[in-house]
Amino acid sequence: MDDAMETGNLAPYQERPRTFPNMRSKPSTPLIFRILMRMNVRLLFVLLFLGFGAIFYIGASTSPIIVFVFSVCIISFVLSIYLTKWVLAKDEGPPEMGQISDAIRDGAEGFFKTQYGTISKMALLLAVVIFGIYMFRSTTPEQESSGLGRLTSASITVFSFLLGAVCSGMAGYVGMWVSVRANVRVSSAARRSAREALQIAVRAGGFSALVVVGMAVIGVAILYATFYVWLGVDSPGSMKVTDLPLLLVGYGFGASFVALFAQLGGGIFTKAADVGADLVGKVEQGIPEDDPRNPAVIADLVGDNVGDCAARGADLFESIAAEIISAMILGGSMAKRCKIEDPSGFILFPLVIHSFDLIVSSVGIFSIRGTRDPGVMSVMEDPMTILQKGYSITIILAVVTFGLSTRWMLYTEQAPSAWLNFALCGLVGIMTAYIFVWITQYYTDYKHEPVRRLALASSTGHGTNIIAGISLGLESTALPVLVISISIISAFWLGQTSGLVDVDGNPTGGLFGTAVATMGMLSTAAYVLTMDMFGPIADNAGGIVEMSQQPESVREITDVLDAAGNTTKATTKGFAIGSAALASFLLFSAYMDEVAAFAHTPFTQVDIAIPEVFVGGLLGSMLIFLFSAWACAAVGRTAQEVVNEVRRQFIERPGIMDYKDKPDYGRCVAIVASASLREMIKPGALAVISPIFIGILFRILGYYTGHPLLGAKVVAAMLMFATVSGILMALFLNTAGGAWDNAKKYIETGALGGKGSDTHKAAITGDTVGDPFKDTAGPSLHVLIKMLATITLVMAPVFL
Amino acid sequence: MDDAMETGNLAPYQERPRTFPNMRSKPSTPLIFRILMRMNVRLLFVLLFLGFGAIFYIGASTSPIIVFVFSVCIISFVLSIYLTKWVLAKDEGPPEMGQISDAIRDGAEGFFKTQYGTISKMALLLAVVIFGIYMFRSTTPEQESSGLGRLTSASITVFSFLLGAVCSGMAGYVGMWVSVRANVRVSSAARRSAREALQIAVRAGGFSALVVVGMAVIGVAILYATFYVWLGVDSPGSMKVTDLPLLLVGYGFGASFVALFAQLGGGIFTKAADVGADLVGKVEQGIPEDDPRNPAVIADLVGDNVGDCAARGADLFESIAAEIISAMILGGSMAKRCKIEDPSGFILFPLVIHSFDLIVSSVGIFSIRGTRDPGVMSVMEDPMTILQKGYSITIILAVVTFGLSTRWMLYTEQAPSAWLNFALCGLVGIMTAYIFVWITQYYTDYKHEPVRRLALASSTGHGTNIIAGISLGLESTALPVLVISISIISAFWLGQTSGLVDVDGNPTGGLFGTAVATMGMLSTAAYVLTMDMFGPIADNAGGIVEMSQQPESVREITDVLDAAGNTTKATTKGFAIGSAALASFLLFSAYMDEVAAFAHTPFTQVDIAIPEVFVGGLLGSMLIFLFSAWACAAVGRTAQEVVNEVRRQFIERPGIMDYKDKPDYGRCVAIVASASLREMIKPGALAVISPIFIGILFRILGYYTGHPLLGAKVVAAMLMFATVSGILMALFLNTAGGAWDNAKKYIETGALGGKGSDTHKAAITGDTVGDPFKDTAGPSLHVLIKMLATITLVMAPVFL
Repeated sequence: MDDAMETGNLAPYQERPRTFPNMRSKPSTPLIFRILMRMNVRLLFVLLFLGFGAIFYIGASTSPIIVFVFSVCIISFVLSIYLTKWVLAKDEGPPEMGQISDAIRDGAEGFFKTQYGTISKMALLLAVVIFGIYMFRSTTPEQESSGLGRLTSASITVFSFLLGAVCSGMAGYVGMWVSVRANVRVSSAARRSAREALQIAVRAGGFSALVVVGMAVIGVAILYATFYVWLGVDSPGSMKVTDLPLLLVGYGFGASFVALFAQLGGGIFTKAADVGADLVGKVEQGIPEDDPRNPAVIADLVGDNVGDCAARGADLFESIAAEIISAMILGGSMAKRCKIEDPSGFILFPLVIHSFDLIVSSVGIFSIRGTRDPGVMSVMEDPMTILQKGYSITIILAVVTFGLSTRWMLYTEQAPSAWLNFALCGLVGIMTAYIFVWITQYYTDYKHEPVRRLALASSTGHGTNIIAGISLGLESTALPVLVISISIISAFWLGQTSGLVDVDGNPTGGLFGTAVATMGMLSTAAYVLTMDMFGPIADNAGGIVEMSQQPESVREITDVLDAAGNTTKATTKGFAIGSAALASFLLFSAYMDEVAAFAHTPFTQVDIAIPEVFVGGLLGSMLIFLFSAWACAAVGRTAQEVVNEVRRQFIERPGIMDYKDKPDYGRCVAIVASASLREMIKPGALAVISPIFIGILFRILGYYTGHPLLGAKVVAAMLMFATVSGILMALFLNTAGGAWDNAKKYIETGALGGKGSDTHKAAITGDTVGDPFKDTAGPSLHVLIKMLATITLVMAPVFL
Repeated sequence: MDDAMETGNLAPYQERPRTFPNMRSKPSTPLIFRILMRMNVRLLFVLLFLGFGAIFYIGASTSPIIVFVFSVCIISFVLSIYLTKWVLAKDEGPPEMGQISDAIRDGAEGFFKTQYGTISKMALLLAVVIFGIYMFRSTTPEQESSGLGRLTSASITVFSFLLGAVCSGMAGYVGMWVSVRANVRVSSAARRSAREALQIAVRAGGFSALVVVGMAVIGVAILYATFYVWLGVDSPGSMKVTDLPLLLVGYGFGASFVALFAQLGGGIFTKAADVGADLVGKVEQGIPEDDPRNPAVIADLVGDNVGDCAARGADLFESIAAEIISAMILGGSMAKRCKIEDPSGFILFPLVIHSFDLIVSSVGIFSIRGTRDPGVMSVMEDPMTILQKGYSITIILAVVTFGLSTRWMLYTEQAPSAWLNFALCGLVGIMTAYIFVWITQYYTDYKHEPVRRLALASSTGHGTNIIAGISLGLESTALPVLVISISIISAFWLGQTSGLVDVDGNPTGGLFGTAVATMGMLSTAAYVLTMDMFGPIADNAGGIVEMSQQPESVREITDVLDAAGNTTKATTKGFAIGSAALASFLLFSAYMDEVAAFAHTPFTQVDIAIPEVFVGGLLGSMLIFLFSAWACAAVGRTAQEVVNEVRRQFIERPGIMDYKDKPDYGRCVAIVASASLREMIKPGALAVISPIFIGILFRILGYYTGHPLLGAKVVAAMLMFATVSGILMALFLNTAGGAWDNAKKYIETGALGGKGSDTHKAAITGDTVGDPFKDTAGPSLHVLIKMLATITLVMAPVFL
């Protein structure tokens, strides 16, 4: 065996010239961080103090609730700084681990920089387009009367959009930043204690979860307070506070725009590397996963960070931002209809819920502790049990704080018991989240029937495995849809019967009830995100352990953590898609409200019996199919490039297999990076351009056929059908992928012939097919659905 | 080599006891045919003459157009009898071919009998349910004033339903009857001349195509004429002729109900046998397709007949019936709105179009001739070219007759140029069909880029092959959707600008324009069905040639015919789904009209912004996913049973591989037959029950929440979303399946390593996965979409 390899000396890798232009061997830090780090610490503190002071001042001029939200966010930032310090204080293990970890960090940060460079250029271009559109659009009577001219509203929208985009990018960066640093520390800790390794992974995940959720909340709060003060809201002759939330949609759009490309690029990167590495490594050469002889292994580990950590951070950030804004819009418009005296409770309710989310999730995160006696390697507990215990604590606290918040924020004398109904809506949401998690586990965990049947189907070959997996995925859409349907209807009904009535005496709280249910579903978002982030960190730690050739006992620990990570990843996806379904329905209603406001006519119906509207629906569903096709195809194509490169390396350097020659990890990273940057453009552009194009096309068609509002109606149908198809397709892709993965794992436990059998080979094929399903196309669809909803909200003026 | 086997002696197979209860070794003929055959020929002629006389008498009392339609149908039945006689006069080849063919016929007829036994029991049960519902439902004011009481309308609906079901069953039987007889004659002819073999297959297909289309047309015409005379339509105080077509919906529902189960049962049978045979035969044992050593080979050949011939016959029958009825309803309601003096032209237009369809398609079928010198084995022409030439002739004639028919039927003095607009609508439909065929070929033919890229993806393994195929299928939905969208909008626009206006002066011909486009699309249906039926007959002939161990030159001929059959099969599916999309949109409009009539209120809008309606949409799309899941899973499960049985036989009788022992073909047939009968129930029941259940559930919910028409609205949304998702899913499944099949064929031509290479193995996996996609779930979805549309029409009264 080669000595240099055995000690983990990766020097040849670091010496080779990289073909990927922007990838550098020293970690690249974004400009803003570098400026901050070069500044005098005392000056920095003064600046920070002044900044927070200004924010608090604006907040205090707006509402005491905003001050509460600010305070909670800042406390959670402080907590997250504590968590980072705690994680970074852990040792990085022996130098061989450090070298691998450096290579991963190097690749991840290089890719991140280039990717976000591309994304920011696109975002700037789009900002110019939005500005142009808003400068030439019409304004609503309310806006005109309140002096909100075109320039002001254009600036507000573009500013919100850019802020959303920047925050989303930062959320992604934070997720990746901590995971590339925590991975090696988890590996190192795994040599000592399973519990300690778990704790590091959880706290690292908790850090980014608190930052992501906190940033989403404080971003919206700052925008709200700034606009409130700037526009002199609620003073005579100015804008009403109930119209204010509509100005924030740009923030949601910016967040989802960046998240979409982050998820696409990261998703393609991670799965192309994974599939490519597996196809040659596991299937052709029969070497284990993460084996250092596989030239694509570093690319695979880099992928976990850019795909799972960075992209998921941006995804959840965007989910929470979109959900907060849509609920604020609905709360505002309901308060307006009911003529509630002080509507701020209904508008700011989502911010309060997520402030409590930060608090209860922190308690959940800190409830996961190391063992009292760290020197002793205790009998390993199931990490899932520990994580579930933390989740249960968080959920119980969330139920309590949710009830308190509804009483505090939603009590109104007009309908004294309304808050109770809304508390029940929240409970519906929390239960929906719980049932979703349970359903996902039923279909993807090998303790249950479906995955076992899938494993059995592998015993009759590759073909039956794929057929069974696809059927399983398609079937798995049924229960979540039933649950979502029941929760939409029951939350709507609870809201409708809350006693809140509009000026004509009609009950009107239904949609807000649905919004509250969505908030209930997301009321433990920070803890869920922590569990999600835990997965890729554990996965990476396992990779480092494998590559640095640690003893079997250490690998066992990281394997167990990795398996728990797979389960949490799958459940988070169920959670994300459930909340996306509810949030899109809310954003759709907000879109209808907005069109009505701009068109000066009621717009409460989208009539699918009109041929053009039906066509809009067809095109919307088609968009989902085409987007999924391109996302999967991108992974397939890039993976083929990786396969060819790895095969080439094995042929040109036959010594690799005997550890006598070193694989060129860098080339694989470079190939995957440039390919995924190239491949993310097509599906992303499709998603952004097609609603705008179709809206304008049918607007023109409507103009010539004498059909008013045709553009807006067609876009509404498109949005609705795309949402429905997108939810189903995402459920299908996520579940099928997760089930294939776990069917393979089940066989690897020794069932049906175990590792190396023909059954196992067939199961690996399924796992390979599932990779782009569950980690590229599926999660991209979550983001796509909400991006479509926010883009139509922002672009609504051009469809009229 | 075993002598008995070499001479094709299948005696041991015939001697073995069958475990499948109803499968008998002599061909089973349905009771009605047996009675007819036992009758005196002269008596039969007298009866026939009397029957036709009565029909003509009723027709003459209705409209001269009906007489024309009857005459054309009867001429085409005579033509089809000539075609059968011609085909049956061909020789059956050597006894070894006959024995195999007998085994196939035996299996096919046995399965058909049992399957249709089950289906007819379900149909009878449903008839009782429908009768009950109609006895307790409310009636429309028009019906009451015209004396159409509950009992009458219940009887009419149930009678139409049963007639539709019986005709659909007969269409299926006819398709299978001729194919199990033609297959061996094609095999035998292939020993002499490729051209003759082609001609036999085409004429056999032509026979069933003419019978199927003729039966659909004459069935509707007889019902129309009978009800017209019986109810004294258009006499004072009676029903208006424009309301008559609504009474025919039962016929469409009966047809689609039977077609759904026929397609499900047949599709599961054919693909489970195919997949099972391939997985062990081709993949594990490396023996060629249709090798006599494979115990599942007879089951596979039986499957072609029950799945492709019988089921496709029922499918196309149902397509044409549904399309005729929906167009008649729309024509009638438009004529009523416009107060056109003689509306019969608008109502009977679809029947005339399909009468011309029979004529022009017959010309096309007879244009395919044997070579002048049958003794000489000419250089083989590409059968596709010959078939395409016939298609071109048919299309050109169809354009001419379509133009003439519009002038004849749709000329009205109110809008003298309207017929020209409708002729253009027809042209839009014909062009849409042409473009659909072209797109399908582009995505599934290996002459083009997509399949070549798919083949290339197979070179990097099973996983990339599957990913590429799924992406290809998902992507292939885009162009057809664009084409359908453009044709819906342009046909609607042409109809709207035709000059036909309602009493208020609003243009009102739009929907009828779309209906005319659908008719244009289906105006060459009989020829298209001929090409479609050609496929499985050629496939079967190839199987018989292979099993009876004919020389290589004969196999080459049947291989070329088989390849052409694959292409025609794929294109017919594109055609079927395109017309299903248009027909469903029409049936949806008819549903809206019907609800409005029953509810005595306008019902022109389905508002997807109402939560319950949105939930209806979600459930509709989910229905498509779940149905596809169950259809694919059924094939997978049954195929696993086949694999286990075949493996068992190879282990228990090791002599099979050396031709020393005989495989037990019968057991495989029995296993597949009973499994597919069992498996067809679940998805079929889901499709039938869920719209009824959801309609009633939301009707009750609407009653308690004070929301009128909620049930009808939710069902409308469900129908619409299911249609859109169903179209997309069917396109995806059909195209992906076809592309995988042809990527494998492309590799078998020697590309990328050719037969036996790893690339080929990966391509076989794709082909296996594609089988249930393209021949079970995909075609079942075509039927499902229209079944949903007709069931909601028939059941509309219970949703109110």
